[in-house]
Amino acid sequence: MYTMRTPLAAGIDIGGTNIVYGWIDREGNILSRGSVLTNDYPDVLQMVEAVVAFLHEDLSFIDGDFDIAGIGIGAPNGNFYKGTIEFAPNLPWKGTIYLADLFSNAMGVPAHLTNDANAAAMGEMIFGAARGMKDFIMITLGTGLGSGIVIGGQMVYGHDGFAGELGHTIVDPEGRLCGCGRKGCLETYASASGIVRTVKEMLGKEHPKSLLDDIDQRDITAKKIHEAALNNDRLALQAFDYTSRILGMKLADAVAFSSPEAIILFGGLANAGELLFLPVKKYMEDFMLNIFKNKVRVLPSQLKDDDAALLGAASLVWKEHA
Amino acid sequence: MYTMRTPLAAGIDIGGTNIVYGWIDREGNILSRGSVLTNDYPDVLQMVEAVVAFLHEDLSFIDGDFDIAGIGIGAPNGNFYKGTIEFAPNLPWKGTIYLADLFSNAMGVPAHLTNDANAAAMGEMIFGAARGMKDFIMITLGTGLGSGIVIGGQMVYGHDGFAGELGHTIVDPEGRLCGCGRKGCLETYASASGIVRTVKEMLGKEHPKSLLDDIDQRDITAKKIHEAALNNDRLALQAFDYTSRILGMKLADAVAFSSPEAIILFGGLANAGELLFLPVKKYMEDFMLNIFKNKVRVLPSQLKDDDAALLGAASLVWKEHA
Repeated sequence: MYTMRTPLAAGIDIGGTNIVYGWIDREGNILSRGSVLTNDYPDVLQMVEAVVAFLHEDLSFIDGDFDIAGIGIGAPNGNFYKGTIEFAPNLPWKGTIYLADLFSNAMGVPAHLTNDANAAAMGEMIFGAARGMKDFIMITLGTGLGSGIVIGGQMVYGHDGFAGELGHTIVDPEGRLCGCGRKGCLETYASASGIVRTVKEMLGKEHPKSLLDDIDQRDITAKKIHEAALNNDRLALQAFDYTSRILGMKLADAVAFSSPEAIILFGGLANAGELLFLPVKKYMEDFMLNIFKNKVRVLPSQLKDDDAALLGAASLVWKEHA
Repeated sequence: MYTMRTPLAAGIDIGGTNIVYGWIDREGNILSRGSVLTNDYPDVLQMVEAVVAFLHEDLSFIDGDFDIAGIGIGAPNGNFYKGTIEFAPNLPWKGTIYLADLFSNAMGVPAHLTNDANAAAMGEMIFGAARGMKDFIMITLGTGLGSGIVIGGQMVYGHDGFAGELGHTIVDPEGRLCGCGRKGCLETYASASGIVRTVKEMLGKEHPKSLLDDIDQRDITAKKIHEAALNNDRLALQAFDYTSRILGMKLADAVAFSSPEAIILFGGLANAGELLFLPVKKYMEDFMLNIFKNKVRVLPSQLKDDDAALLGAASLVWKEHA
């Protein structure tokens, strides 16, 4: 008797705090999800063993007959070609870790790994705002600024697997000190932490009276700036304008590079919606070379914040099975 | 009887002053070449007719039995997808010209067209410094700054065919006025005309005594600045340093985008050799994100100035026959 078996992908998102894993079908349904604390596993082999055991256990609770199509992994400093994470500053495992091989060996199926922003881009291409697009750029605006670039339907990995670091293009060589050790990187301005730095700088100078004056500076977050801006707080609105101008200018540069159909914004700061999207779009057009004007859409992600990382990781598998 | 017929490509380089055409074999030998004056042909159809007639005539003088494999065309503002030139400011034909179709119909073989910098990149990939490379960036430093980007062995054309305009990424939004109407584009600094502007600015302020003081400002060229620098002229050396710092910084940005194996510099300003290459390389490394440091070669073109345009155009044909 012939039984139709449903292919499933294991999606794994490696973060500094949590490792989230789940089973995802080809339509982007998340059939199970779980997580472990990253720092509970100083030994990476134990982490792999534990996550694989949990995944197998979860699978036994899902109704149906399944084939495991593969494993997709999103990880900071992930290298697609080698399936490694290398010197990721926020992870407990040091040196070069062949994480894709470790998972592949433990489960007996192929494993694909890339960095979080590339996985997010893949998620949008397979399940989200970039469905049907061949040329787009994904920008994740979290603590830093991550990017995933798709050209001609292919992720851009570059010759070493590390392409797509738009967060570390330079806005001002004499500008803000970046975590990477250099000065003036885009992510020091255009990110959740970047806008917080902007507000703190503004509060340190003569400035319009602001709702943010009443908050301990250590407690200022992108979300609180967003809330103040929704209440028409002038300083908060100026901070969004300042951030958007810099991001818009660098997006115009990115368009001159790869001429994408759309740029998709995702992550903490992107949740500010029109407060960010309208000025970013305006400044991007102001700074755009004529031949590209009014061609490039700036879109919000269509993946829910909580699902994006798992869907992105699973997309690495479905992309191979396209 | 079976005769081995040699495939040949017609290469055509469309310029504001001359249109150069020739027959090129698969090994990059230029078997014939000729040119006409662009402005002798206000009607584009007459230009196509004339060039095709000259090409046929030339072919009759080449010994051997040939197949015409195709036509490759490099042209300013060329669009690969549509085979058009669109609103090229220095050409006599206005509006959108379907130049690839016109040539293809006139010769009865396929024709491929792209902009000059992309053709140059293709020429390096097939015949020059980028042989065997899958990821590199070509920069042409002439009157302007053109660029051709190759990722995974494919030219980057973008969703509209106009990708690769690194000359119009922004160095300083309050900077020099560019021919494109915006301010602070890279090509206003890093190009043959950019370094001339730099020297004129320096001569207009307090400056070290210079060999260039004795030249009428209208006669200053990149070549004369190069010659002065070879004579250890301080002002000329400072101009090269200033130019190289800006170019190096923007090349570091380009590396963060596509992580190429090499960057190839071509054209008037690149002929300055080490005077340009050494400081560009140094500043690029200074501005480079750690993970990319000491990985990316900066190479001179391996095509002779006089041959590059024809070889680039012909490469469009050989790329299709790879």
